[in-house]
Amino acid sequence: MKALLIIGDGMADRPLKELGWKTPLEAAKKPSMDHLASVGICGILDPIAPGIPPGSDTATLSLLGYDALKVYPGRGAFEALGWGLEVAEGDVCLRCNFATVDENLTVLDRRAGRIAEADASKLAESLKKIKLSRKNAEFFFINTVQHRAALLLRGKGLSTAVSDSDPGINGVKVREIKPLDSSPEAKFTAEILNELANKFHQILKDHPVNKERVARGQPPANFILFRGAGTMPKIKPLSELYGIKASCVAVTSLVRGVCKVAGMQLLDVKGATGTPQTDYIAKAKAAVQALENSDFVMLHVKAPDVASHDGNAKQKVEVIEKIDNMLAYILNKVDLGETYVAITADHTTSCTTRKHEGDPVPLAIMGPYVRGDDVEEFGERACAKGGLGRLRGKHLMPILMNLLCKIKKFGA
Amino acid sequence: MKALLIIGDGMADRPLKELGWKTPLEAAKKPSMDHLASVGICGILDPIAPGIPPGSDTATLSLLGYDALKVYPGRGAFEALGWGLEVAEGDVCLRCNFATVDENLTVLDRRAGRIAEADASKLAESLKKIKLSRKNAEFFFINTVQHRAALLLRGKGLSTAVSDSDPGINGVKVREIKPLDSSPEAKFTAEILNELANKFHQILKDHPVNKERVARGQPPANFILFRGAGTMPKIKPLSELYGIKASCVAVTSLVRGVCKVAGMQLLDVKGATGTPQTDYIAKAKAAVQALENSDFVMLHVKAPDVASHDGNAKQKVEVIEKIDNMLAYILNKVDLGETYVAITADHTTSCTTRKHEGDPVPLAIMGPYVRGDDVEEFGERACAKGGLGRLRGKHLMPILMNLLCKIKKFGA
Repeated sequence: MKALLIIGDGMADRPLKELGWKTPLEAAKKPSMDHLASVGICGILDPIAPGIPPGSDTATLSLLGYDALKVYPGRGAFEALGWGLEVAEGDVCLRCNFATVDENLTVLDRRAGRIAEADASKLAESLKKIKLSRKNAEFFFINTVQHRAALLLRGKGLSTAVSDSDPGINGVKVREIKPLDSSPEAKFTAEILNELANKFHQILKDHPVNKERVARGQPPANFILFRGAGTMPKIKPLSELYGIKASCVAVTSLVRGVCKVAGMQLLDVKGATGTPQTDYIAKAKAAVQALENSDFVMLHVKAPDVASHDGNAKQKVEVIEKIDNMLAYILNKVDLGETYVAITADHTTSCTTRKHEGDPVPLAIMGPYVRGDDVEEFGERACAKGGLGRLRGKHLMPILMNLLCKIKKFGA
Repeated sequence: MKALLIIGDGMADRPLKELGWKTPLEAAKKPSMDHLASVGICGILDPIAPGIPPGSDTATLSLLGYDALKVYPGRGAFEALGWGLEVAEGDVCLRCNFATVDENLTVLDRRAGRIAEADASKLAESLKKIKLSRKNAEFFFINTVQHRAALLLRGKGLSTAVSDSDPGINGVKVREIKPLDSSPEAKFTAEILNELANKFHQILKDHPVNKERVARGQPPANFILFRGAGTMPKIKPLSELYGIKASCVAVTSLVRGVCKVAGMQLLDVKGATGTPQTDYIAKAKAAVQALENSDFVMLHVKAPDVASHDGNAKQKVEVIEKIDNMLAYILNKVDLGETYVAITADHTTSCTTRKHEGDPVPLAIMGPYVRGDDVEEFGERACAKGGLGRLRGKHLMPILMNLLCKIKKFGA
């Protein structure tokens, strides 16, 4: 027995006036999702807890069976892992922005004009050569997409209890990084980060790439802002928890980072972009293929969240219909006598508020031995009447693994 | 967006033979509650946990979003706060009864013939003048309603781990107060309380007011019984948790005390009495008005609990119909495009057992963006089929605050 879990990022929503007070899921034509709900068992999940709006990282941790409220170590490490940095226990990771500051270190543009990757890569190469004054610590820096970058600190006695240098808005000065507790580790880490911020600035302010940018009328990327210090969570991989081989089809770095921490194999899919224009069928093919030598495959689609953050209900409906088409392909290809297929969302993203919200998400699971219920539609309200009732996100994985007979008996 | 929460104290019940095995809620004509359930989303709440009968204090704590199982500090402080005493961290509060004892300190009447407030006030004035032998502790004593009073101890090194002097029944001797653990704080507190009990008795036994009472044929109020030592819970106010301004319309001192600890503004309403004869519309007006400069208003009605403790099912039905009338006023006055209105009970009070019981309570929430369900009636059984499923009392507040966009995202 195997299991495939499809996660539509931010796919759940609240009723929308423009959709006649239906949610995008309720308004979409989605015969395959409805079929799955119809033959399967349904329910609703609070990804973290009732009313709590989850991030994509905490929600994914929960859907993989971890108690995010206990193990969440901040975003930094997941982002860095998702971008391919090797993060070890004790490392401290931060999210970074290439930014533009003036001579007084006032932030003029937190994104340096959304600098192109070509420029950012050249600048990043120069930064990698910097030496820290402390012998007992080292750093790794990579640029990722546009103005975004990741920083990893490695050494003895580091701490995540440090403030951000990123003020979060333009027009104010870069903040000095300060220890957030009285430990020597926090003081040490803050000192290293301030040193790095300064040395990065010294290299960047006179860098030829920035001179070219200014000549072209573009803002110079002359400062690296740090935020969101995080470290590796102390969690056991899925292989150890359930004795399974697990794979992940996802593009979003944050989600890939969580899956990597869970010990899943990260698959790269040509044409998968993390946008509404992603190649849905290419992702489906990769997931179906991954099932051949995995017990559990997670297939993550970022698109509905993107449409929601844009407040674009029409696009969200279209994206859901494309995911339904992707599901049709999957249901046609996998051996349904040997495979459980589940679909859910990692959280509600409201097209009205354009934010993650704490409302529950629908869940449906089909497969050989589920106790099918009366629900005939995959939607927020329909699934609330399902046989699974209302659960937490962290309960999904034990339920799937139980169906796969991968959970040890508790007791005798 | 704003939220109004209506709490019918003890409004939920078990099926009653005299109502054709309906509950009072099910038997009552309550078109406004049914409308709320019909357009809103419904569910049932276990105020504390399945099967656990809550007190009014623990239930209110839960409905305000606190984990009563973790933070409940005993009843004393809530009662004292509700009566207007200023309780600080470290203070120990006790509930007190004016009682009648004989020369052997055997309790003849735990309520001193339900002594009138006029007499109790005069006696209390005399007690306030007593000096404690310890310089490092002081006390505050106030009489409240009839035979009831509150005592507050302030000083260094106090403890709530002390037994009651109130034996709970007539015909037995007053109990000596004993420390309930081996700490010096518990020993110290017990010593002070025994000293106070003795000094109070010395003043009261020969007090002119008591001589007059005896002359009138009334039992003398010659002893103050202590029980329920409690202190301030360590909880954050709602303003800090959710960034909201919150107000409370309630008469019951215990409920007012909980709301005060939660940092809510306590409103006084003329004609509100905490009895079935309370001025329901005056309370409704106060709540609607409070919504103008509050994000969250809690409107508490004691009456159904009073009828339940009297085992008066007919009166309970009538009281529920009056609350429904109050709700009609509210729904007519508030801006329903900007306001979430929720109704629930703090606990089940059975007209049969005349006690708080651990059965869940119904909940309905209406408002702009709720995922309305199929439930068309506000009742214990109807709401159990609703879209919210079965939750704990402590989940209600996060759910309401999520609808108001007042909860920070957990994760990134």
